[in-house]
Amino acid sequence: MEKRPLILVTNDDGITAPGIRWLVRTMAAIGDVVVVAPDSPQSGKGHAITIDNTLYAQLFKGAPEDGALVEYSCSGTPADCVKLALHELMDRKPDLVVSGINHGSNSSINVIYSGTMSAAIEAGLEGIPAIGFSLCDFSWDADFTSAAHYAGVLAQEALNQGIPNGVVLNVNIPRTHEIKGVRICRQARANWKEKFDKRKSPMGKEYYWLTGVFDLQDSGSDTDEWALAEGYVSVVPVHFDLTAHHAMAALTQWKLNG
Amino acid sequence: MEKRPLILVTNDDGITAPGIRWLVRTMAAIGDVVVVAPDSPQSGKGHAITIDNTLYAQLFKGAPEDGALVEYSCSGTPADCVKLALHELMDRKPDLVVSGINHGSNSSINVIYSGTMSAAIEAGLEGIPAIGFSLCDFSWDADFTSAAHYAGVLAQEALNQGIPNGVVLNVNIPRTHEIKGVRICRQARANWKEKFDKRKSPMGKEYYWLTGVFDLQDSGSDTDEWALAEGYVSVVPVHFDLTAHHAMAALTQWKLNG
Repeated sequence: MEKRPLILVTNDDGITAPGIRWLVRTMAAIGDVVVVAPDSPQSGKGHAITIDNTLYAQLFKGAPEDGALVEYSCSGTPADCVKLALHELMDRKPDLVVSGINHGSNSSINVIYSGTMSAAIEAGLEGIPAIGFSLCDFSWDADFTSAAHYAGVLAQEALNQGIPNGVVLNVNIPRTHEIKGVRICRQARANWKEKFDKRKSPMGKEYYWLTGVFDLQDSGSDTDEWALAEGYVSVVPVHFDLTAHHAMAALTQWKLNG
Repeated sequence: MEKRPLILVTNDDGITAPGIRWLVRTMAAIGDVVVVAPDSPQSGKGHAITIDNTLYAQLFKGAPEDGALVEYSCSGTPADCVKLALHELMDRKPDLVVSGINHGSNSSINVIYSGTMSAAIEAGLEGIPAIGFSLCDFSWDADFTSAAHYAGVLAQEALNQGIPNGVVLNVNIPRTHEIKGVRICRQARANWKEKFDKRKSPMGKEYYWLTGVFDLQDSGSDTDEWALAEGYVSVVPVHFDLTAHHAMAALTQWKLNG
């Protein structure tokens, strides 16, 4: 019998979130699972790391029935969790790192704000196959049945096929119960139209809440937003070489050395 | 006489950092300057945004001699500062957004952890020309003379030429006093080899400090790391479409819809 793969599971909603519990159970059916996940919600933390503060990690024994070999909760960000797992807590390099299942979409431009994806990218930087999973449903008691199914299919296929070096997968699962299948997509062009909700504290001090509306500026039928709207699981291969190669020629015309 | 350009200045080291004070003075010689910057250091915050907490902004009057029209300190991250500036605090869209000058390098893979660059990217998302500046010297009393000179040259040229849509510039200035000029570069392949410094608190609880060594895996002479090592200012055009287009074909071969 082949050796079971070693799988690291993390997320950004915190170790007790329903989404990660579904992911742990799904991965425990595929391989040996180690969990290192934040001890509190870290949504919107982007690729933050903790460089000016201490980090704590402690054994988490809250859900042995989910089937992980061992679980740790960590005081840091999702990227911290992966770093700590790979370089301190795990005995050997995992065969796969999965992050999620996030409560809420990380499609399109949301990838750059996403703690879920920053954890996957952190693993990708170390040359480990990695996938971030997000369900397009923010609610805490969302139904993860379909999302977990596709997480299992994609994780197994990533273990079978490998993921190209320098690439991690951003997987979003639509909220619908009638999923049509999986599409390989590009990231849709979009951003957030911000609106600040200005209020006054009981002490009379003005403060703001950040709110916004998602503004899709892309009508292509090869994007993640299109796929999700049509009821497909979207898979975007993401890389962390941010160089805009197409822009280099124009910049060499600038007068910078005069 | 032409209308003076409107320039938003921000950073991630906080509004009182020497690096931003140099940048404010440099930009005030080019245009009308508005400053919205964090009220405390935000290094390593990546593209974090504040979605589960309130944001404060207040007038900062600590350095009128630097020549800004108005300055605000903000309780949020660099990305929050840009959002708040563009959508709440400023009367009109700026012609240019500059971030920095960061105390420390943001070359190569550091771009994904960088609060400095997340501020620039946030502006780029809104279609505004934006540049992040970083000096390869972490010290608080670093000499910003050369860095400020090149920041001025690049900002002026960005105003003259425009920056291609969907692209922001990641500019790093070497520590040397004998800068050879400016190079347009690609992001070098590299990552951090982490090492956790494990300690025990006075109360007996174990904790960690994240430390690491930069590991350059790229010997190309067209990279930012090469340019900086040779004494050039590096300019990397950065985009925020993270799609790894080259990886899409291989992924379409995966068995995902069986």
